[in-house]
Amino acid sequence: MSIRAHELAERLGLELSGDGNVELDGVSALSSARPGTLTFFGDNKYKKHLLTTTASVVILKEEDLVDCPVTAIVAANPYLAYAKAAQILFPQTPSDGVVHASAVIGEACDISDSVSIGPLAVIGDEVTLEEGVQVGAGCIIGDGCSLAAQTILKPGVTLLHKINIGERCLIHPGVVIGADGFGFASDNGMWEKIPQVGGVTIGNDVEIGANTTIDRGAIGNTVIEDGVKLDNLIQIAHNVRIGAHTVIAASTAVAGSTTIGSKCLIGGSVGITGHINITDNVIITGRTFVSGSIHESGSYSSSVPHDKTSSWRHNAVRFKQLDKMARQLKKLEIKKR
Amino acid sequence: MSIRAHELAERLGLELSGDGNVELDGVSALSSARPGTLTFFGDNKYKKHLLTTTASVVILKEEDLVDCPVTAIVAANPYLAYAKAAQILFPQTPSDGVVHASAVIGEACDISDSVSIGPLAVIGDEVTLEEGVQVGAGCIIGDGCSLAAQTILKPGVTLLHKINIGERCLIHPGVVIGADGFGFASDNGMWEKIPQVGGVTIGNDVEIGANTTIDRGAIGNTVIEDGVKLDNLIQIAHNVRIGAHTVIAASTAVAGSTTIGSKCLIGGSVGITGHINITDNVIITGRTFVSGSIHESGSYSSSVPHDKTSSWRHNAVRFKQLDKMARQLKKLEIKKR
Amino acid sequence: MSIRAHELAERLGLELSGDGNVELDGVSALSSARPGTLTFFGDNKYKKHLLTTTASVVILKEEDLVDCPVTAIVAANPYLAYAKAAQILFPQTPSDGVVHASAVIGEACDISDSVSIGPLAVIGDEVTLEEGVQVGAGCIIGDGCSLAAQTILKPGVTLLHKINIGERCLIHPGVVIGADGFGFASDNGMWEKIPQVGGVTIGNDVEIGANTTIDRGAIGNTVIEDGVKLDNLIQIAHNVRIGAHTVIAASTAVAGSTTIGSKCLIGGSVGITGHINITDNVIITGRTFVSGSIHESGSYSSSVPHDKTSSWRHNAVRFKQLDKMARQLKKLEIKKR
Repeated sequence: MSIRAHELAERLGLELSGDGNVELDGVSALSSARPGTLTFFGDNKYKKHLLTTTASVVILKEEDLVDCPVTAIVAANPYLAYAKAAQILFPQTPSDGVVHASAVIGEACDISDSVSIGPLAVIGDEVTLEEGVQVGAGCIIGDGCSLAAQTILKPGVTLLHKINIGERCLIHPGVVIGADGFGFASDNGMWEKIPQVGGVTIGNDVEIGANTTIDRGAIGNTVIEDGVKLDNLIQIAHNVRIGAHTVIAASTAVAGSTTIGSKCLIGGSVGITGHINITDNVIITGRTFVSGSIHESGSYSSSVPHDKTSSWRHNAVRFKQLDKMARQLKKLEIKKR
Repeated sequence: MSIRAHELAERLGLELSGDGNVELDGVSALSSARPGTLTFFGDNKYKKHLLTTTASVVILKEEDLVDCPVTAIVAANPYLAYAKAAQILFPQTPSDGVVHASAVIGEACDISDSVSIGPLAVIGDEVTLEEGVQVGAGCIIGDGCSLAAQTILKPGVTLLHKINIGERCLIHPGVVIGADGFGFASDNGMWEKIPQVGGVTIGNDVEIGANTTIDRGAIGNTVIEDGVKLDNLIQIAHNVRIGAHTVIAASTAVAGSTTIGSKCLIGGSVGITGHINITDNVIITGRTFVSGSIHESGSYSSSVPHDKTSSWRHNAVRFKQLDKMARQLKKLEIKKR
Repeated sequence: MSIRAHELAERLGLELSGDGNVELDGVSALSSARPGTLTFFGDNKYKKHLLTTTASVVILKEEDLVDCPVTAIVAANPYLAYAKAAQILFPQTPSDGVVHASAVIGEACDISDSVSIGPLAVIGDEVTLEEGVQVGAGCIIGDGCSLAAQTILKPGVTLLHKINIGERCLIHPGVVIGADGFGFASDNGMWEKIPQVGGVTIGNDVEIGANTTIDRGAIGNTVIEDGVKLDNLIQIAHNVRIGAHTVIAASTAVAGSTTIGSKCLIGGSVGITGHINITDNVIITGRTFVSGSIHESGSYSSSVPHDKTSSWRHNAVRFKQLDKMARQLKKLEIKKR
């Protein structure tokens, strides 16, 4: 896809400064840009790269126009404008409406003519695939699933039975949605399985990263609301609810029946315990362990920063003495007074 | 599946109180129950929901009968009785004995007539599948594997060669059993692969969650004993042994050659170092790092609880001063005396 | 595969002591060895097992020859010599050059005659597979990918489009390479996707463990250099670069745009934050959180060791008081002087 700078600016509804006839066919990083590409500048740390950039067009704030040696598109939020511009340069390939002959399709399905189904995909019975849905090679869709318009399953996604996914979702390879939640009742130290008879409901505009797992509910549903973005290798246990537009980075695990509010930012390798509530607009920094409910918006952390192993060894062992130290300190303070 | 309350009570061997003719066709949560469903009550915290439940039947302890507005089934352990009742209402679908025409099956296999094999599954050579085994769509079973009676592979499970799985196991999508363990010998900072020539042995009644990985042994086998339940995204390294009826929650990793005893309860996002022993009946709470052997039954932890990032920042930096603080404190104490 | 001890010693270029005619057909652990097998001894902790071993041949250091009751092969580094010997006894099965009839192969591919492709694999368009490449059952290879000579994809690997993999790599089941990196621009708390238009470049002799995910770059490439070994369930985010011969254990996550040097040893369940640099020859012990760049070679840690939950509870709560404690302590010290 190729576009002239002035046309791109028009489609973004933004002002252009400089030669609008330069042709763009790709994107680059500011510091290693190829002519013919678009880049963005939003962080003064990289000002020197702006001054010498070899990109053809830079998206930037008005105040930085003076330092731009090439054509510029002016945006209040250059990164956001770049996202939209890159979507224009690299549009999502639409469905070609082809169902590969090797795909295995069940009975009583309701599949729009505009759906594409890749080689060796398996579609169960009574599956609904709306307009423009794309099912990648080797995907497995269980009985009774429903995928709303324009949702894309990349190759190798597995949906168990009766999973509902909204519009314009993007599900990456290796994702498993609707496996049994982890529920057992103890019987003298042996374990009796609790049948997991709930489902999974996924809203619109949800993205789910590679090899992430979302379990079905024990009784009610596991719910991922609109606009949620999940990175790779995330575990979402049964009956979790994740509020709209919340973002979770890779390798985080959310235990069962926890509710997370909307517009939260949750870092990578975070652990969130079960049966708690996290309110809206909460930030959890990477590697934090959330051990109880969070009722107040704000930023929360618990990681321990790295240190040289030789020093760490001495400090880590003191962790087990912390309470003793605190009580000694209190006594010393009291004596002092 | 539909059943009358008195029939359900009989099959469970439990007493019924109230109208035994009510018909049940599902399960509900106590607080949002649909008529026609079964629920359970075992935690006094939810007593108010019992008083107003709209379920048709509640499983509860004898002492709570007085507060139950509907038919009750009386159990010493309501949650366990619920598990068994739900299994009656939602029985595991048995094998239909159908081998899909698109499945690819190798040579010299020993496959019972009662086995079902889903679309586009691949079965290697010399594979044994006993009575009632179900192999889901897209599963890949390597040469020389053996699955004992009634074991179910959900769609998209991968078993490498010569993996032995016991009876009545349930393996969820994306599970990989028998990939090479992670073994290399250093050669001046380069790495020479140690061939991983052991296998994996999985006992009876084992459940393994989505996208969990269990590596084959370097020389001997990796062993998962009877009744073990593993959640999603767990890593079991080579030559690990997990004792009978131990339960491990999601996103936990167990490093190589570690032995875990029986009837342990291991939380989510736990890390367990290699070459250690954990005795029987050990509880490891979520997010703990187990850095050495545990010889005594009991509960163990190491997580750091979350805090506001602003406070955490001040505290976390002190972690690196802990040993210094401890030594200063000791000096002050000595002077004091 | 069977070999006489003297022939094995010759192929390794090592001295033999004792009967060179003993026949070897496998490997064993020192303490539970079967006659006819090879084992190794390198750790004096296990000296008693050497004295009574029932292996037929032991690889050991010259100084331990005196304690060896059977044929010995003498090596300066017995473990390394064992690795090479086991590779001779258990050679990687070479490609048989068979393309299974059920595989689906795209257009304009360049596939060497010596390539094997397993059942129900899907190869996209314009894919290059060099001599001796093996593609396992059910693998999915996207358009424009290129796999250099002798690389092996075990069953169930997914490569998105335009992924380049070097020679002699070994990729285990469930690995996903080239899914979209996790990049979004905030738009008033909603999220606009940043198209991920970079690729993934993987060098020679790389091994990647089961269910590990390596995302494609946002603009430039994610790069895994020669000889890197990645264990299972690892997350490598977009635009990460991992230096040659670095080893990473299971369940570790590396956030976006981080550069890791060469010959690093990174433990399991480690979390590495984004946009940092880790120099060469760094050791990160298991479970560490790396929160900033590491400019000096050496060993780094941050885990907190496990403790009885009853003690831990008292200590963990003090973590939130650490800064207060440190300031109190400082005051007491000042008064004391």
